[in-house]
Amino acid sequence: MELKEAKGVTIDDTYAEAFPTWVARPIITAVTEEWAYKAAVEAVGFATSTIGCPAEAGIDCFVSPDETPDGRPGYAIMICASKKKLKEQVVERLAECILTAPTTAVFDGLSDVVAEVPEKLPVKLHFFGDGYEEKREVGGRTVWAIPIMEGEYIGEEEFGAVKGVAGGNFFIMGENQMAALTAAQAAVDAISGVCGVITPFPGGIVASGSKVGSNKYKFMGASTNEAYCPTLRDKVENSKVPEGVKAVYEIVIDGVDEDSIRTAMAEGIRAATKVPGVKFISAGNFGGSLGPFKFELKDVLADYL
Amino acid sequence: MELKEAKGVTIDDTYAEAFPTWVARPIITAVTEEWAYKAAVEAVGFATSTIGCPAEAGIDCFVSPDETPDGRPGYAIMICASKKKLKEQVVERLAECILTAPTTAVFDGLSDVVAEVPEKLPVKLHFFGDGYEEKREVGGRTVWAIPIMEGEYIGEEEFGAVKGVAGGNFFIMGENQMAALTAAQAAVDAISGVCGVITPFPGGIVASGSKVGSNKYKFMGASTNEAYCPTLRDKVENSKVPEGVKAVYEIVIDGVDEDSIRTAMAEGIRAATKVPGVKFISAGNFGGSLGPFKFELKDVLADYL
Amino acid sequence: MELKEAKGVTIDDTYAEAFPTWVARPIITAVTEEWAYKAAVEAVGFATSTIGCPAEAGIDCFVSPDETPDGRPGYAIMICASKKKLKEQVVERLAECILTAPTTAVFDGLSDVVAEVPEKLPVKLHFFGDGYEEKREVGGRTVWAIPIMEGEYIGEEEFGAVKGVAGGNFFIMGENQMAALTAAQAAVDAISGVCGVITPFPGGIVASGSKVGSNKYKFMGASTNEAYCPTLRDKVENSKVPEGVKAVYEIVIDGVDEDSIRTAMAEGIRAATKVPGVKFISAGNFGGSLGPFKFELKDVLADYL
Amino acid sequence: MELKEAKGVTIDDTYAEAFPTWVARPIITAVTEEWAYKAAVEAVGFATSTIGCPAEAGIDCFVSPDETPDGRPGYAIMICASKKKLKEQVVERLAECILTAPTTAVFDGLSDVVAEVPEKLPVKLHFFGDGYEEKREVGGRTVWAIPIMEGEYIGEEEFGAVKGVAGGNFFIMGENQMAALTAAQAAVDAISGVCGVITPFPGGIVASGSKVGSNKYKFMGASTNEAYCPTLRDKVENSKVPEGVKAVYEIVIDGVDEDSIRTAMAEGIRAATKVPGVKFISAGNFGGSLGPFKFELKDVLADYL
Repeated sequence: MELKEAKGVTIDDTYAEAFPTWVARPIITAVTEEWAYKAAVEAVGFATSTIGCPAEAGIDCFVSPDETPDGRPGYAIMICASKKKLKEQVVERLAECILTAPTTAVFDGLSDVVAEVPEKLPVKLHFFGDGYEEKREVGGRTVWAIPIMEGEYIGEEEFGAVKGVAGGNFFIMGENQMAALTAAQAAVDAISGVCGVITPFPGGIVASGSKVGSNKYKFMGASTNEAYCPTLRDKVENSKVPEGVKAVYEIVIDGVDEDSIRTAMAEGIRAATKVPGVKFISAGNFGGSLGPFKFELKDVLADYL
Repeated sequence: MELKEAKGVTIDDTYAEAFPTWVARPIITAVTEEWAYKAAVEAVGFATSTIGCPAEAGIDCFVSPDETPDGRPGYAIMICASKKKLKEQVVERLAECILTAPTTAVFDGLSDVVAEVPEKLPVKLHFFGDGYEEKREVGGRTVWAIPIMEGEYIGEEEFGAVKGVAGGNFFIMGENQMAALTAAQAAVDAISGVCGVITPFPGGIVASGSKVGSNKYKFMGASTNEAYCPTLRDKVENSKVPEGVKAVYEIVIDGVDEDSIRTAMAEGIRAATKVPGVKFISAGNFGGSLGPFKFELKDVLADYL
Repeated sequence: MELKEAKGVTIDDTYAEAFPTWVARPIITAVTEEWAYKAAVEAVGFATSTIGCPAEAGIDCFVSPDETPDGRPGYAIMICASKKKLKEQVVERLAECILTAPTTAVFDGLSDVVAEVPEKLPVKLHFFGDGYEEKREVGGRTVWAIPIMEGEYIGEEEFGAVKGVAGGNFFIMGENQMAALTAAQAAVDAISGVCGVITPFPGGIVASGSKVGSNKYKFMGASTNEAYCPTLRDKVENSKVPEGVKAVYEIVIDGVDEDSIRTAMAEGIRAATKVPGVKFISAGNFGGSLGPFKFELKDVLADYL
Repeated sequence: MELKEAKGVTIDDTYAEAFPTWVARPIITAVTEEWAYKAAVEAVGFATSTIGCPAEAGIDCFVSPDETPDGRPGYAIMICASKKKLKEQVVERLAECILTAPTTAVFDGLSDVVAEVPEKLPVKLHFFGDGYEEKREVGGRTVWAIPIMEGEYIGEEEFGAVKGVAGGNFFIMGENQMAALTAAQAAVDAISGVCGVITPFPGGIVASGSKVGSNKYKFMGASTNEAYCPTLRDKVENSKVPEGVKAVYEIVIDGVDEDSIRTAMAEGIRAATKVPGVKFISAGNFGGSLGPFKFELKDVLADYL
């Protein structure tokens, strides 16, 4: 297949396979955009993949002062984990990375992007106040004001959680590494404009996609996906690296629902195909063994084929 | 006490108390400074305090192409944890946040900042290669080259570890929040020029310093340090907030040794005192119950008093 | 007057006086947001005030790939000057700072923010192609494709111009410098979300507002506005610095029309008043001698008083 | 020729031709690195080439608090122009972009990078003080303190000027645009670590190198250098684009002397050749008609060939 607007880039006739995750979406506000951003960055770090990180997390989008409960600029972050682990991760990341950060306040932002909020996680940071804390109302929200060294911390203590989608993805293949990498950057930029999704890997990009398990080292839960390694194209059978492709990047997307993933995939792929040197777009799946969600590239891109 | 060069700012006659931690210091290189930085930021996230995070971590400093084994730009990061947890944290943070990041390579950088490296942590990422990996030499270092989707990942697999110092600190007190915050930013900027130290909190700054335990909520391991809360100045006995102070920020410093902490404290305090509206500099200690290291402000600042 | 939502901050009962300027608004696209941004920054530099710069210029806002003619990310910039000088400034800034920048294309973006475009400036960069250039269509726009070292430059050659408003302004006064400065930053952040306006000074902020002429040095066209200098409060008659104010910053706004200035003033002032330590908001005027536009603070803020 | 450390990249046996320019090098300090940076960026904008800009300018390097006269962080900028125009450009850029910027002070920084300072430019901003200004000493420098709205501006009023070198350059040629562009970025990063030089074009990179005059349009002073345009490779005689090259970027370097240019060229070229997809390095000259300085690539890179 070929995008109408990007002649010369082939779209593989395949699908991305994804699986359920639980998602919370706090909004962090601060005195300026920059301070909100710094706190958000700390809170979503070490969170690329639940294979080895305690959660998957990222910055969803900027929230303008007109849209935050306290009228200050903010960033919505998303934290994704199993239902069992999500509460602990929201508590720890807010307690250690936001309560400690200069001028921040925290509000629940899930209902801005989903129609229904099925669960509420209690996040009782007010005990940190050791009895000096007090309940208050800010912008229609019930919050706790906790005396701290810089003055006061303001925070909601119930955060919505929803069963969302993890592992939405596509592959960008280029005639060399820098073409594919710049296209991956363009894709991540475009996806950052879509609400309700994150790209949790470093800079939003995966350089080393993996397969489940390992053929040689049985103790490994995941190992390099040799079928997509350009340097192994002539060494492995059934390589999936097309001729002329020298580098492959994967964009992994977690979202609050299937629609947000679909939009993010479409926006990301369109942006990537505009970068000179991109040859081929594909997606990762495991024949249905990984999860129940299928995103066919030809459906996602229907309007552009 | 008063700094010669900053009339009007009082230096408290007290000391910072600190405790031992184990430290590793990987250097992450990439095709450009920006890609090295993005990977480093992901790897040191969710790592402000071992109270609730799996490690304390931060970016130490930029390493120029002339000083890295592969001649590319890099960032040295520091990961700090108990001896028992350090290896796991280095493995997971490199595996999930650096191996996955575009164009990165990793080298051990501890010997650049300490005279002796007492321990070596094995970090065997090469099993990810599933047998396609190979040993190689880069800039005099033995590395593994692992085929991945973007091409090849290059990494050393032994990382030095040293018993360093965690919890070096000082307090910046201002006539209002923005004066104290800008001074904290200036302090963090200045400390970023000192090698062998990190300021692990968000943006390098702590807005909500804590005391051990809680008076009211016995299940809390830490709670707000009411003696340093400006809004509680008239409500608690023995408040340590000087008259006219409306905000207090703490800078927490982890370092590879006592000297690096001392230098970082001196540079940070000098920078903070240059910001208009700063009134008072102090430091946090627990009477010796927390750890064996004492940094008297009058010693640290001897040259400037 | 006092904002409903910001108790303790006084709004002066005065007005901002502004004057006409001519405005062009090119959109610069590039392969990624970052490359578009770098080009835009170069093109709008050395352009704070037409007192000493050849133009006033700034970045208006980000333009998403869905809204640009070539489907790539972009930034809209605004260039403001007298009708006589505007064409030359648009030509030189595009020729020297955008045509030379990596991967850029340029499109006219004025009609995105004004209902009518009264003038069109011819900007014939295609002569640079020395005969190798060719006409083409991109996203419904007629452009020239010019062969250059990196490949091809794409650009429109007619740019709309409109008689807009220069010198919209307000003053932020704080109990100290860092409070006022952080509030100025918050104001600039908020204004950056308003389309059709720029804040042309460094970082969007004026630290040294001026009066017309000089009392002592007759050869000076402008000099310090001593009535607003906090350090001269007790030395000059008729100081306009309220008691307790130690620093004043001015936000200067150029816009495509009066409405955009009004919105920007309201958004900026609201944001500023949320920063602790801000005491007083005023605005600059010269009793009608400077220009025909008057923005009464009480009108601009009518909804919030 | 081939760099020892970069097999597969050919170094052309040619030279860069450069010409004299006059250079000033002010140091801008501020309350934090970020505010110093914002002011510096404004001051060096619209300054890529004296063909169409009033000067060539850029940020040379960060200056740490230990090295600035006022003990605050700073950035050294360089402003380059003809001897006749330099004074006016230094005056206007400091008056409009630094005196107006929050918390800035300015000091002369030329003697930090040259052994002898042959000329001093008077830059009498103190008249802005309208008689309220006063002389003072800061860090051993005689400065003027001018009352302004934010408080006080501090500035030296004599700036050294030296006859330096403009137009040092090299060409980076890649198998596609993104490879060449990323290499150009890596080169600019590396050059930013060299003191006494700037790369004045947007992001430090030239996408559209020019030749003197035009063959077709006699009124043009400069036009596209068709010999280096990849899309014209088969259309012009004597194309200098090697086979397999799809994009060419030029790095233009202005420096305080020949040595600084030489170092910058070596550092930049080495960095560029480490980027995958780079094929060929060359340099621009006009057979000696442009200027008296010749930088042979084989001399500049002698240690690495």
